[in-house]
Amino acid sequence: MIIIMKMNTVQQNIEAVVSRVEKAGFRTHLSVGEERTIIGVIGDERKLDRGAISRMEGVDRVVPVLRPFKLASRDFQPEDSKISINGHVFGDKKVIVMAGPCSVESLEQMRETAVAVKEAGAHLLRGGAFKPRTSPYSFQGMGEEGLKILAQVREETGLHVITEVMAPEQVDLIAQYADVLQIGTRNMQNYALLNAVGQSNKPVLLKRGMMSTIEELLMSAEYIMSNGNHKVILCERGIRTFEKYTRNTLDINAVPVLKELTHLPVVVDPSHATGKWTLVKAASKAAVAAGADGLIIEVHPNPAEALSDGEQSLKPHRFVELMSEVRRVAEAVGRTI
Amino acid sequence: MIIIMKMNTVQQNIEAVVSRVEKAGFRTHLSVGEERTIIGVIGDERKLDRGAISRMEGVDRVVPVLRPFKLASRDFQPEDSKISINGHVFGDKKVIVMAGPCSVESLEQMRETAVAVKEAGAHLLRGGAFKPRTSPYSFQGMGEEGLKILAQVREETGLHVITEVMAPEQVDLIAQYADVLQIGTRNMQNYALLNAVGQSNKPVLLKRGMMSTIEELLMSAEYIMSNGNHKVILCERGIRTFEKYTRNTLDINAVPVLKELTHLPVVVDPSHATGKWTLVKAASKAAVAAGADGLIIEVHPNPAEALSDGEQSLKPHRFVELMSEVRRVAEAVGRTI
Amino acid sequence: MIIIMKMNTVQQNIEAVVSRVEKAGFRTHLSVGEERTIIGVIGDERKLDRGAISRMEGVDRVVPVLRPFKLASRDFQPEDSKISINGHVFGDKKVIVMAGPCSVESLEQMRETAVAVKEAGAHLLRGGAFKPRTSPYSFQGMGEEGLKILAQVREETGLHVITEVMAPEQVDLIAQYADVLQIGTRNMQNYALLNAVGQSNKPVLLKRGMMSTIEELLMSAEYIMSNGNHKVILCERGIRTFEKYTRNTLDINAVPVLKELTHLPVVVDPSHATGKWTLVKAASKAAVAAGADGLIIEVHPNPAEALSDGEQSLKPHRFVELMSEVRRVAEAVGRTI
Amino acid sequence: MIIIMKMNTVQQNIEAVVSRVEKAGFRTHLSVGEERTIIGVIGDERKLDRGAISRMEGVDRVVPVLRPFKLASRDFQPEDSKISINGHVFGDKKVIVMAGPCSVESLEQMRETAVAVKEAGAHLLRGGAFKPRTSPYSFQGMGEEGLKILAQVREETGLHVITEVMAPEQVDLIAQYADVLQIGTRNMQNYALLNAVGQSNKPVLLKRGMMSTIEELLMSAEYIMSNGNHKVILCERGIRTFEKYTRNTLDINAVPVLKELTHLPVVVDPSHATGKWTLVKAASKAAVAAGADGLIIEVHPNPAEALSDGEQSLKPHRFVELMSEVRRVAEAVGRTI
Repeated sequence: MIIIMKMNTVQQNIEAVVSRVEKAGFRTHLSVGEERTIIGVIGDERKLDRGAISRMEGVDRVVPVLRPFKLASRDFQPEDSKISINGHVFGDKKVIVMAGPCSVESLEQMRETAVAVKEAGAHLLRGGAFKPRTSPYSFQGMGEEGLKILAQVREETGLHVITEVMAPEQVDLIAQYADVLQIGTRNMQNYALLNAVGQSNKPVLLKRGMMSTIEELLMSAEYIMSNGNHKVILCERGIRTFEKYTRNTLDINAVPVLKELTHLPVVVDPSHATGKWTLVKAASKAAVAAGADGLIIEVHPNPAEALSDGEQSLKPHRFVELMSEVRRVAEAVGRTI
Repeated sequence: MIIIMKMNTVQQNIEAVVSRVEKAGFRTHLSVGEERTIIGVIGDERKLDRGAISRMEGVDRVVPVLRPFKLASRDFQPEDSKISINGHVFGDKKVIVMAGPCSVESLEQMRETAVAVKEAGAHLLRGGAFKPRTSPYSFQGMGEEGLKILAQVREETGLHVITEVMAPEQVDLIAQYADVLQIGTRNMQNYALLNAVGQSNKPVLLKRGMMSTIEELLMSAEYIMSNGNHKVILCERGIRTFEKYTRNTLDINAVPVLKELTHLPVVVDPSHATGKWTLVKAASKAAVAAGADGLIIEVHPNPAEALSDGEQSLKPHRFVELMSEVRRVAEAVGRTI
Repeated sequence: MIIIMKMNTVQQNIEAVVSRVEKAGFRTHLSVGEERTIIGVIGDERKLDRGAISRMEGVDRVVPVLRPFKLASRDFQPEDSKISINGHVFGDKKVIVMAGPCSVESLEQMRETAVAVKEAGAHLLRGGAFKPRTSPYSFQGMGEEGLKILAQVREETGLHVITEVMAPEQVDLIAQYADVLQIGTRNMQNYALLNAVGQSNKPVLLKRGMMSTIEELLMSAEYIMSNGNHKVILCERGIRTFEKYTRNTLDINAVPVLKELTHLPVVVDPSHATGKWTLVKAASKAAVAAGADGLIIEVHPNPAEALSDGEQSLKPHRFVELMSEVRRVAEAVGRTI
Repeated sequence: MIIIMKMNTVQQNIEAVVSRVEKAGFRTHLSVGEERTIIGVIGDERKLDRGAISRMEGVDRVVPVLRPFKLASRDFQPEDSKISINGHVFGDKKVIVMAGPCSVESLEQMRETAVAVKEAGAHLLRGGAFKPRTSPYSFQGMGEEGLKILAQVREETGLHVITEVMAPEQVDLIAQYADVLQIGTRNMQNYALLNAVGQSNKPVLLKRGMMSTIEELLMSAEYIMSNGNHKVILCERGIRTFEKYTRNTLDINAVPVLKELTHLPVVVDPSHATGKWTLVKAASKAAVAAGADGLIIEVHPNPAEALSDGEQSLKPHRFVELMSEVRRVAEAVGRTI
């Protein structure tokens, strides 16, 4: 941590800051400039409260030096984490594809979709039983009945399933049925929920908040990991910006940035990141070209009848086409699918 | 709802859309232009799935006409809602001021703050016992012990208290101690939590998500209200933008916009909306001048020692000064404080 | 400037950075931490290229210490700048109000508006003769004919005029007619234009770019001032955010921030900052309560017939009402109008 | 255009709107709902002022139906525009690569870079002689001397050159030396400049404003095209968002969106869109995978000594590596390079 004092502040203020920092068990290093003094803090600054020091008399700004995350950081674990689900390994050479509808609507719909996406080459099945909806008047999901449908379709097709968990008290129930727990974008900073999935032993797919920074995403991963569950898969799903032509703006930069900062696998959700099915294929190819370890894509046998997110869902034959084109890109960047 | 068809789409697509809308129980109205056909939908469109129709063959765009919220809307209740807490009425002529520290840290700290803010004219005491923190390594609040301190200080000073609830399972516990339940910015779309506070009978202060639109804020109020609890106070607390000089950008426009759209009271949190104590006074005066029904302000007897948010907390003597200046602005706009 | 080296970088990289900085005429100060070395640079860092150093081997980040602006900074001129136009002084106790239509449309329209706004208490007349429009098919302004109308109305009413300049080659022409040159939001970083108005001796009202930071606004002021023209008035006019209910988001925080950082006068444009005439009064009161030195407001005798920006223009009788309410707020914060 | 009237507005307001629209030469179509009336406008709405109608008594909202651009629209020209420079065709099967330093610094630097990028497979040489810089104290470019260096290096290497034009009065001068005129991000809405390049006969590379929507980018292209110059190449170069880890956020969605909306070629600038050289390769591959027609990349023989943008410039050997990897991706999506 570096503490930048105000121009020409009195010596007494400098001493007060130094004294406080040293009392907290850190060493300091002074750099006396022409107009300002700068105080370097030596030690693990994550244990020091930046806000409080900012507020001391004579302090202009406090600049952190260390990154605030640790377990998620590549500094502390240089090699990639590998998370295996039913033999499909996230964080390895293969690009893992999860596909399925936004919401579980019926056994027939899930079965039809599962058979189609499996045939096209998908590795996991997605589908929401508990749905976060902006409006209390929209379809809220089938609940436990939806979970049972997912389990039955897994039984029939062999595709393992990923589904969303929205509240701490749902974790145990959902963990009985699902293979991967998904934390949605609106819950990325629902700390009670992060703690709860951190205490389960299921892999967690953590979606980036639609207006959360990359660093905040990693801090939320840190919450899960600090509870003992290190099987965290990060998901870039588009951020909210001033551009309104698309539902969200896919932050493609986040893919290589995350691969630099963390050892955790990184997947992309091109369906939410664009909000329009006509753009999903291009976004998927871009994600894989940029280095994503996986994709999570909405596919629905009849999008015009979907109970949610019909605008961004692909019909099965479009998904087949997408898989074939994405495969060529994956191979071009030295991966398989 | 208005459905704009693509240029020169075939008649069959138009008929399919009309047929689907009418089967769902709505009437339609066609407007045949030179290049496009537009289909008007007559009936309560909140019951029709916009996404699914967008996805039909030949549809270019779907434009909603009605606002998606109802209980919160001024269209359905023109007169202001009034919510009384210990005789202080939100939504009336008086500007209600809530003040206190970010976190409850000790009985002494709360008692000292409560006495000071009461003397300066504050009407309620704020203080967090359960704290949402970006880092799992930061102070997470005192928990139930903090609630007990709040209750004791209420006993001693007569100031009713507002405190944050972070998870559905905390609602009952916190409702035993607190007079107003606060939903924080990261939980504005935590629907399990909104449903839970909607089933309690305590007033709820709902903070706008830092990444949420005004309409989404009203939809979250609708969640609470549709569970039966109509005592919702809305809080603008700054949004996330590209500007980084301040912690957030106070969306002052939201105050008159909300007063137009809804009958619910609207308060402003100038502490989080700026993130710097030097800006809190100017932001408070602006909020009241723009029509806010209340303010929620961080005050700490010793901000440099605060366990959270020290940068944006006012010392008690600064709060006295603020109250005096805000009072003059309140009177200039025909209100009291 | 502070240079933060990467964790465990080799000594040779540290020496290369130190050597480069010292060769450029600066002194350095090393702070050797447990994991990292930090190099403090002593001297006027504005003369050192931050980007180039960031790119050197072993460098993690470079943190500036000094603000990049100088002439505009309150550090270098603590007392407020005062800019007088026809006896009305920006940056003094009086809140200066500029009012008039978006575009000059005819002599009758300007005369009628000028008489009305003068009577209501406005100090200057605004009106655009050259109009920046998103579409090449929209009305582009009356050009020099519009300037002549402005000059004639000034003659008749005694109100001095402010009008926009869009290109360097227009500066001389417009300076013959106008009393204040306005730089629009889309031109805030049109450096050729900033240099051109910097070489004129007319006061300049510089509008903040709709997605420019406060610091960039001050850097653009610095461009004008470094050409010799110190008569710069800054204007907050709303920024672009994800919120779409309003045309822009009025960054009310920018008012007290600018008053801290610079000695230049700060005015607010509540018409563009909201985009809806129903919100202009609340925004005007908020601006003055927050410390603005002036307002620039769109008024049109018949907004529904306006050739541009009719949605946000006030009718004269609404402007009278606004002036009366804003006056009370101005007095409440110790100012006149 | 669709005009949505307020709930229960009086008949007289509806008639006034209809009358005004019809007087302007349009036909109307009324849709009378339970709570609201909606007025459809039939005819080329680009000629009708949306703002003025919005402001009429009883009008709630006005929704445009037609896109505001025409010459740039794929509706009016379905087939791709092809723009040939020295035999390299933008908008065709080949991905065109422009490479070179941010600024022209010396003949040696340009010559060394040109030879290197040509050998690596680049098709055009980039380099700025006139530089827009945030600070008036930063290096502003070599001016005409820089243009002469570009011309000489073109002579020597056969690489045609692209360089930035910042002001209308520079267009003639720069057109003497350059093969493609670049409009920078800060000038995307500098309408005087757009008109000036629209009157030249040189191809124009138009960078998206960092704060501009996709639609605004197309409107700026429309400005150039409506002056007679149809040789416009669009460039996505990253937008400004809340995320600060990268300099800008590459809006990769914009690539397929633009390919849908317009027939003009679309290129990507991965250097500015990321701001960090370590991310440029991933962003380049993503851009080509998403369908970009070209790339414009900063390459500098010695980035740490660069006079501008050193952080994001690639060394020549990194550019060689990038070209080789991008080539494989290009082939995977059916293109060459």
